[in-house]
Amino acid sequence: MFTRRAPETLKLQTEGVPVYSVNDILKYKNEIDVLMICGGSATDLPEMTKTYAKDFCVVDSFDTHARIPEHFANVDAAAKAGGTVALISCGWDPGMFSLARLYANCILPNGQDYTFWGKGVSQGHSDAIRRVEGVKNGKQYTVPVQEALEAVRNGENPNLTTRQKHTRVCYVVPKPGADLKKIEHDIKTMPNYFADYDTTVYFITEEEFARDHSGMPHGGFVFRTGSTGADGANKHIIEYRIQLDSNPEFTASVLMAFARAVVRMKKEGMSGCKTVFDIPPAYLSPLSGDEIRAHML
Amino acid sequence: MFTRRAPETLKLQTEGVPVYSVNDILKYKNEIDVLMICGGSATDLPEMTKTYAKDFCVVDSFDTHARIPEHFANVDAAAKAGGTVALISCGWDPGMFSLARLYANCILPNGQDYTFWGKGVSQGHSDAIRRVEGVKNGKQYTVPVQEALEAVRNGENPNLTTRQKHTRVCYVVPKPGADLKKIEHDIKTMPNYFADYDTTVYFITEEEFARDHSGMPHGGFVFRTGSTGADGANKHIIEYRIQLDSNPEFTASVLMAFARAVVRMKKEGMSGCKTVFDIPPAYLSPLSGDEIRAHML
Repeated sequence: MFTRRAPETLKLQTEGVPVYSVNDILKYKNEIDVLMICGGSATDLPEMTKTYAKDFCVVDSFDTHARIPEHFANVDAAAKAGGTVALISCGWDPGMFSLARLYANCILPNGQDYTFWGKGVSQGHSDAIRRVEGVKNGKQYTVPVQEALEAVRNGENPNLTTRQKHTRVCYVVPKPGADLKKIEHDIKTMPNYFADYDTTVYFITEEEFARDHSGMPHGGFVFRTGSTGADGANKHIIEYRIQLDSNPEFTASVLMAFARAVVRMKKEGMSGCKTVFDIPPAYLSPLSGDEIRAHML
Repeated sequence: MFTRRAPETLKLQTEGVPVYSVNDILKYKNEIDVLMICGGSATDLPEMTKTYAKDFCVVDSFDTHARIPEHFANVDAAAKAGGTVALISCGWDPGMFSLARLYANCILPNGQDYTFWGKGVSQGHSDAIRRVEGVKNGKQYTVPVQEALEAVRNGENPNLTTRQKHTRVCYVVPKPGADLKKIEHDIKTMPNYFADYDTTVYFITEEEFARDHSGMPHGGFVFRTGSTGADGANKHIIEYRIQLDSNPEFTASVLMAFARAVVRMKKEGMSGCKTVFDIPPAYLSPLSGDEIRAHML
C-alpha cells in the first residue's frame, strides 16, 4: 500500500500489509506486478495514471465518460514509452456495463440501449444535499422507475425522458432549528442534480441515519432490445443486472480480476493503454484454458 | 452458401446469394473470409469443423459440453496446421452464457452459479415426444420455476434439485383414436427426458399447433451470487438474461458478430482453435477503438 498521507497514520483492515509513502514508490519498481490506482476521476487519476504508467503496469477506475479519449491518449503514450500495460476505466460503469453494451450491440445491431442505475447511493448527489443550508447529514438514492424498467423488459421499446427513468430519494438529518420546508425546496429545485427528477425528501435523526443508511449499496441494469428476421418480426431482449450490497467492494473485485489480466498481457510482451474491451475474458481467470473450457463453456 | 444437397434444390430467403455444392468448396478458398459451419453437434461438427479448419477460418456452434475438450484439440491441430483461426462452441449456451459465467466467476470468486433455461422450445425434448406412440406432432417448452428464480434473485442461495429448477410443458397433437392417457403416461415417465421433472401435457389440434406453436422462442438466465468484505457480509448478485423470439436467429446473430472477430484475428497473424473466452470484445465490433471508447465505455 502506497499512500500520500504519512504511512504510520494508516490502519489497514488486512493485517501484515506494509504501508509506504508514495514518494518512495520507484524503489519498489521491480517488486510490483501491477498498481491499482485508487484516486478520484476529477483531478487525481488524470495525473496519477499517466505518471505511474511510465514505470508500472496500472489499473484505474477513471469514470468521467466525456474525458476518456483524452485520458486514454495520455496514458497510452506513457505506457508505450515505459513498455507497460495500463488499463483505464475499469469497474462496473464504465466496466462491466460497457461490456454488456458492447457485446449486445454487436449481436443485435438493429436495436435500442437502455441503462438504469440503482437502487443505490449516488456519492455526487449525497455530497450535493450535504452542502444545502441547514443540512447536517444526508444520503441520496437513485431509484429506477419500475414501470419504465418493466416496459423495456416487456419489449415495448419506450422513449423515456430523464424523469421517466429514475427517481431520487433523499434522507436528510437537519441541523437543530433548521427550516425543513426550505431544505426540501432547495434540494428539489437544485439544477443538474435534482430539478429534472421526481425527488422525495425524508427527514430522519442522526441515529436513524447511522442505523439505516451507513452502507454503500448500488446496482443497475443494461438492456439491449433488437430485432432479427426478414421483416424484423422477431424481437430479442438482453438484460445485464447487478445488485450490490457494497459498491466499493464490488468495484474493487472487478479491478482485481482485471489486474490479473494486465499482468498476463505484460508477460506476453504487450504494452500501451487498454480498456475492458481489449481484454480476452480468459485472461481474467486464474484457471487454465483447459479448465475454463471444461467447466464454464 | 455451400450445401450437401443438390444446389439447385435450395431456395434461399435472401435473393442473389449463390449456392454451390460443398464438394466444390476448395475452389473458393481465396474468396472466403470465414465459414459459418451450420451442422449438428452429434455427428456433423466433430468431422466438418476439423476438416474445413485446414483451409478456412471457421465458426461453429458445437454444443455437446462433455466433448468440447476433444473437439477443441482436433480443431486446434487442424487450424494450426492450416494457419487459420477456428472458433468453436459459439452461440448463447455455450457462448454468451459461458461469458456471463466466466466474467462473474472471476469477479466474485466466493459464490454460487445458477443457470436457468427458458421459457423456450427444447428441440431434443420435442423430438422425444414426437417419437411416442400415438403422437402426430408435439412441442416441448422448458420453463424455469418462478419461485426458484426469485429465491436466487433475492440472494437466498438455495440448493435446487433438477425438479425444483425447471418444469416441462408439452403440447401434443394426437393421432386419430390414440389413447391419450397412455401418451401422457409414456411422456411423463420417459427416463432422462421427463421422469425427473414436473411435466404437464396438453392435447391440442393440428390447427392450434400451427397457430400457437410454430415459433422457436427461447431464453434463460445466468446468475452468480457472491460475497465480499472482511466477514463476507456484503452480498452481490450478477444476472444475465435473454428473451428470444427466435433461438436460431439470435444464435446466428451471435455467430455473425464473432465471425467478424475471427477474420480480424486471422489478419493479425493468429492461428489455432479459439473459444469466446479468447476473443477481445472489441474485435466483435465494426467500429474503431476510438468510437467504442467514446460511445460505449
